[in-house]
Amino acid sequence: MTNSVPKPVMDAEELNAFLSQVYPQLNDHLEGYRVVDVKPGGCTVRLQASEQHLRPGATVSGPALFTLADIGGYACVLSHLGPEALCVTTNLNINFMRKAEAGEILGRSRILKLGRSLMVFDVEMITPANGLTVAHASGTYSIPPKK
Amino acid sequence: MTNSVPKPVMDAEELNAFLSQVYPQLNDHLEGYRVVDVKPGGCTVRLQASEQHLRPGATVSGPALFTLADIGGYACVLSHLGPEALCVTTNLNINFMRKAEAGEILGRSRILKLGRSLMVFDVEMITPANGLTVAHASGTYSIPPKK
Amino acid sequence: MTNSVPKPVMDAEELNAFLSQVYPQLNDHLEGYRVVDVKPGGCTVRLQASEQHLRPGATVSGPALFTLADIGGYACVLSHLGPEALCVTTNLNINFMRKAEAGEILGRSRILKLGRSLMVFDVEMITPANGLTVAHASGTYSIPPKK
Amino acid sequence: MTNSVPKPVMDAEELNAFLSQVYPQLNDHLEGYRVVDVKPGGCTVRLQASEQHLRPGATVSGPALFTLADIGGYACVLSHLGPEALCVTTNLNINFMRKAEAGEILGRSRILKLGRSLMVFDVEMITPANGLTVAHASGTYSIPPKK
Repeated sequence: MTNSVPKPVMDAEELNAFLSQVYPQLNDHLEGYRVVDVKPGGCTVRLQASEQHLRPGATVSGPALFTLADIGGYACVLSHLGPEALCVTTNLNINFMRKAEAGEILGRSRILKLGRSLMVFDVEMITPANGLTVAHASGTYSIPPKK
Repeated sequence: MTNSVPKPVMDAEELNAFLSQVYPQLNDHLEGYRVVDVKPGGCTVRLQASEQHLRPGATVSGPALFTLADIGGYACVLSHLGPEALCVTTNLNINFMRKAEAGEILGRSRILKLGRSLMVFDVEMITPANGLTVAHASGTYSIPPKK
Repeated sequence: MTNSVPKPVMDAEELNAFLSQVYPQLNDHLEGYRVVDVKPGGCTVRLQASEQHLRPGATVSGPALFTLADIGGYACVLSHLGPEALCVTTNLNINFMRKAEAGEILGRSRILKLGRSLMVFDVEMITPANGLTVAHASGTYSIPPKK
Repeated sequence: MTNSVPKPVMDAEELNAFLSQVYPQLNDHLEGYRVVDVKPGGCTVRLQASEQHLRPGATVSGPALFTLADIGGYACVLSHLGPEALCVTTNLNINFMRKAEAGEILGRSRILKLGRSLMVFDVEMITPANGLTVAHASGTYSIPPKK
């Protein structure tokens, strides 16, 4: 017996449509976050980092990468439980390892545990242009009780 | 002998002027972050949370609070070391405890250690309207070597 | 209105008696952890660090300080909820800031949120001999549902 | 180009011999930690959890799993840099996901970044008896300057 891999119930396009409806702030003010893949036990979210996501030193900012990690967890919980907008992050820990320039960054998130009330996940953030890992995060989403 | 409390070399207005010069993205796209106090060993940063900082459930988003914590650390390191824009976050851990509505949120940051190459800090985020702690973060900034 | 401060229902001696009954491993193999104070919203646990708690470099080891932080959280949840041994840590983040030699280390823990199913806390670990903060932790305990 | 995978310079037996010499506390008081594999970019450490590693509820304690994660990082930095005992943990974040009974637990650690002064790693802890992930950690080791 191994960790049973949970199965998704929403795909990337359904997630993007749902996010643009319930969370318009995500791309109105910080454009560039899109779910690009959903598979059993994980998701990939892409940040197309532009001028507005940079910090001093012309590198992608901590908040922009945190957002990528957080949306990665949100995409995991939504895609595997269905459109329950009120799941919320309770903890997120992020390590910043290398500077990333403007351009594409992929956040590959993975469900470590999907329980009844909590989901634990991690996210590896890489710049596909050079294959480097720029940041790594792990965190917890709280799942509201079924009505 | 006790922990020697480091002394600031920049005040709140100098910090805000420096941030608007080197980090225009902070308030161009996510208006509302201002340093409101600097004292030996710590700073207070205010987020005036509006519609654009909210997530589903009409509560202040994780990324908006992460930004408040991260700027709290940046304000600590800048105010106590001087205008060294290239200090960068290497780790940040954040716990979200209570939902916060739009309005004022204060991030009270505290330097736990100011070494030659690393600064460790924590930030307590409260809603002054009701005195509640909404989130708590701790993290590390890396300080570049003196030229 | 401010954060309501929760009131303890067990004192330091009751906690030590309870810990030695339900968690004999704590002091059988790693002697030296004792609750020395309980007050509304927090506790102090003392580690009397000896040879067995050291790591290479003759400084107190990471696991010994993690244990101090973890017991600090456990003392908070037990003292404020009553003797519910099955509360468990779900997350703990610790920053190590200064080396500590053998001797007394105090872990001052503080309840940041006491909810129905989760308690969030932080712990500042100091060496009273010189007043220095050697480590800082924050974490979450899960509280089992009432039967 | 991809992340260059660092190459180990010590194998599992060399690591165990070095650990028993410089860090006798590890197995004198909490027997059961052994490096069982070293490969480019990572290590596996085994905890043979017995009565002494349990907490209330007869499950493997947080400190025992923290130790497994911490030794996983130490094994990574030692095996890839050589026998530099004075590398120290600066941060470790751990999520506890499932209860583990006494028995074998494997900590599979992975180097996420090996820089000149810092190494970032993560560790997945599984119970091979059932293939479940019981805990996950990420952290940072500080590497002392070359003399």
